[in-house]
Amino acid sequence: MSRPPEASVVDGRPPWVVGIAGAGQLARMLCEAASALDIGTVVLAEHPDDSATTVAGAVLAGSPRSDAELRALAGASDVVTFDHEQVNLSALATLEREGVTLRPGTATLALAVDKGRMRRRLADAGLPVPAFSVLPAESAVAAVEAFAAEHGWPVVVKATRGGYDGKGVWIAGDVVDARRICRQAALAGVALMVEELVAISAELAVVIARRPGGEMAVWPVVETFQVDGVCREVLFPGRLGPDVAQQADRLARQVATLCDAVGVLAVELFWTGDALIVNEIASRPHNTAHWTIEGAATSQFENHLRAVLDLPLGSTEAVAPSVASVNVFGPLGDTGPGPRLPAALAVRGAHIHLYGKATRPGRKLGHVTVCGSDVETVRERAWAAATALGSGARGGTGYGYGARS
Amino acid sequence: MSRPPEASVVDGRPPWVVGIAGAGQLARMLCEAASALDIGTVVLAEHPDDSATTVAGAVLAGSPRSDAELRALAGASDVVTFDHEQVNLSALATLEREGVTLRPGTATLALAVDKGRMRRRLADAGLPVPAFSVLPAESAVAAVEAFAAEHGWPVVVKATRGGYDGKGVWIAGDVVDARRICRQAALAGVALMVEELVAISAELAVVIARRPGGEMAVWPVVETFQVDGVCREVLFPGRLGPDVAQQADRLARQVATLCDAVGVLAVELFWTGDALIVNEIASRPHNTAHWTIEGAATSQFENHLRAVLDLPLGSTEAVAPSVASVNVFGPLGDTGPGPRLPAALAVRGAHIHLYGKATRPGRKLGHVTVCGSDVETVRERAWAAATALGSGARGGTGYGYGARS
Repeated sequence: MSRPPEASVVDGRPPWVVGIAGAGQLARMLCEAASALDIGTVVLAEHPDDSATTVAGAVLAGSPRSDAELRALAGASDVVTFDHEQVNLSALATLEREGVTLRPGTATLALAVDKGRMRRRLADAGLPVPAFSVLPAESAVAAVEAFAAEHGWPVVVKATRGGYDGKGVWIAGDVVDARRICRQAALAGVALMVEELVAISAELAVVIARRPGGEMAVWPVVETFQVDGVCREVLFPGRLGPDVAQQADRLARQVATLCDAVGVLAVELFWTGDALIVNEIASRPHNTAHWTIEGAATSQFENHLRAVLDLPLGSTEAVAPSVASVNVFGPLGDTGPGPRLPAALAVRGAHIHLYGKATRPGRKLGHVTVCGSDVETVRERAWAAATALGSGARGGTGYGYGARS
Repeated sequence: MSRPPEASVVDGRPPWVVGIAGAGQLARMLCEAASALDIGTVVLAEHPDDSATTVAGAVLAGSPRSDAELRALAGASDVVTFDHEQVNLSALATLEREGVTLRPGTATLALAVDKGRMRRRLADAGLPVPAFSVLPAESAVAAVEAFAAEHGWPVVVKATRGGYDGKGVWIAGDVVDARRICRQAALAGVALMVEELVAISAELAVVIARRPGGEMAVWPVVETFQVDGVCREVLFPGRLGPDVAQQADRLARQVATLCDAVGVLAVELFWTGDALIVNEIASRPHNTAHWTIEGAATSQFENHLRAVLDLPLGSTEAVAPSVASVNVFGPLGDTGPGPRLPAALAVRGAHIHLYGKATRPGRKLGHVTVCGSDVETVRERAWAAATALGSGARGGTGYGYGARS
């Protein structure tokens, strides 16, 4: 497992082809990074206008949930990696048994797609996590009540699968809330877990790249700012000191090793004021490391490619004292960020990334990164450009939970 | 001419499409930059495996010398720009008259493709150029002799069209050489000019982006190192002081204005020890500014796109104290740089760009850029990675003339 797939050179053609299950913005930025290294890419795209289809080396129409279509992707690739976690795990397990190189592998994916399982694994290893309990479907409300009796109301109820960007996360203030949430989840066939509502003084993220043999490279920890559970802004180096950064780095290495991660893995953390607690894990490139494209010596996308091909990892050092990255969201009644591009480009130092996605209110359409020496200047510029492109006004509760639907 | 082409937004699709005549590495790096901004690209590619075909939004098979194929490119684009100068000028002039937006326009291209015409324009404007004379086909040898009688032997004889990377440049030490060169050129139907052999203490390049309305952004001047007329290494900031840098900046602005450049324009300069002399001009992205991808706030490729779409230009500031960029050339009997990638990636801080071209001895296959604080460290690392990928050992005469064929 610790050597690159055989490089198969055909006159001038890329020696490796990375297959990507899914064709969203993460796949798109992987393809952009792959081009510079002349690494071939093929994406498995559900829709012909998916984000990555304009820049991938090849596009395969199909779904990452389809057995046959994942098999076709594997056939066209030297290694298969993932744009998101909504994949067909049993089909992947079959492919893996047949010798297809999946990176990360299904053991890691199985953890990453199931928050309950991941949480148990982390807790069993002694890593700091919020108090939690996976809810039995037949007695979910009673289990929430029992949990709350021990940890107090309100509690956080989460779907164990499929949640992202604040979706699948609810706060239950009392048993009435809990009943409503559990009933809706049961109707939708969604498995749940409950956890304590942590009093957060900051949210952080640390992102790491890991090769099959275990070599790791960790980007510096960043502070993240959420609104309604959706990340709005990422700030390097954030407001916390070197002690916390070191602790975050150590945690990332422990989590990546525990999950046997290959490629990029993101660890979202709560800072309570005196301790770091692991919140969520994603075993793929992550929104909280988009800043690395311009802000670090090697981007998360390039290092993900290097890692899944078992090539030497690049330096993760920041290249500027301050870096701010702000997400761009679709506003109401708009035709997309394109016509707004001139105003955003006029903002000094703004590195603009648009994902080519059709606009919808609240949909993540892109991000803007600004590097510089002064933290307030980079934040202001990144917000100015992102706001020009369409996202709402600057805000951020610093609070990681979803809307109280 | 000073507003962007109308942005035509179709649900999620790029608001602008830039057509690129030619599909070499410059087109490829333009396409990579375009993806981040969600600017659409279509390349006119002579061969299906041309460098840019793996990353362009769309590929049109055809030649930039073909009337019909250029017209098809124009039909698929909001604005047409160029990967190289080997284009059909009269076809382009027709398209321009019909209202197609060419950037740069044919007036600029007509200068850029003809070294004699360009040199005359620069000289007429009082810009410092080597003494020169365009040779009449019927009495070329006599004209070289007359020129040498005034300026001394040896002299430099150049093809006025089609030369690049040291091709089409010869040094004539005496009338015997001159006769041979002129005879071969006459047989090949190549028009010639002669110029003095400038005693050079350094070669520099300054690259500039210019919008249709005249707004300009100039990257810092760099020092370039040639072997047999082919650029091997580009160094920011080079060994010359701020006075020379300022003078280079001023010259670039004068040249770009004089040529009515739109997009990126490169000015190659000789430093004689006490004066700058303009050597060559290219009205497109240029090898001497590949370092700007990682080394400057905005790359030449992004600013070329911004300029040809008449969008605000990005900052051209360097982002590190020292940047070295070294070209990768194909060695003999090799299958290409792909299998050599692991060794190159192991070089700390090496940003590797491979163009996906089939290898041939001496063919430019990619480049490596390293940014840092110490000039010798960045040079060493860039050379180490480039050498690992396949180019010859470190060298560089600092001498800009071609092989004495």
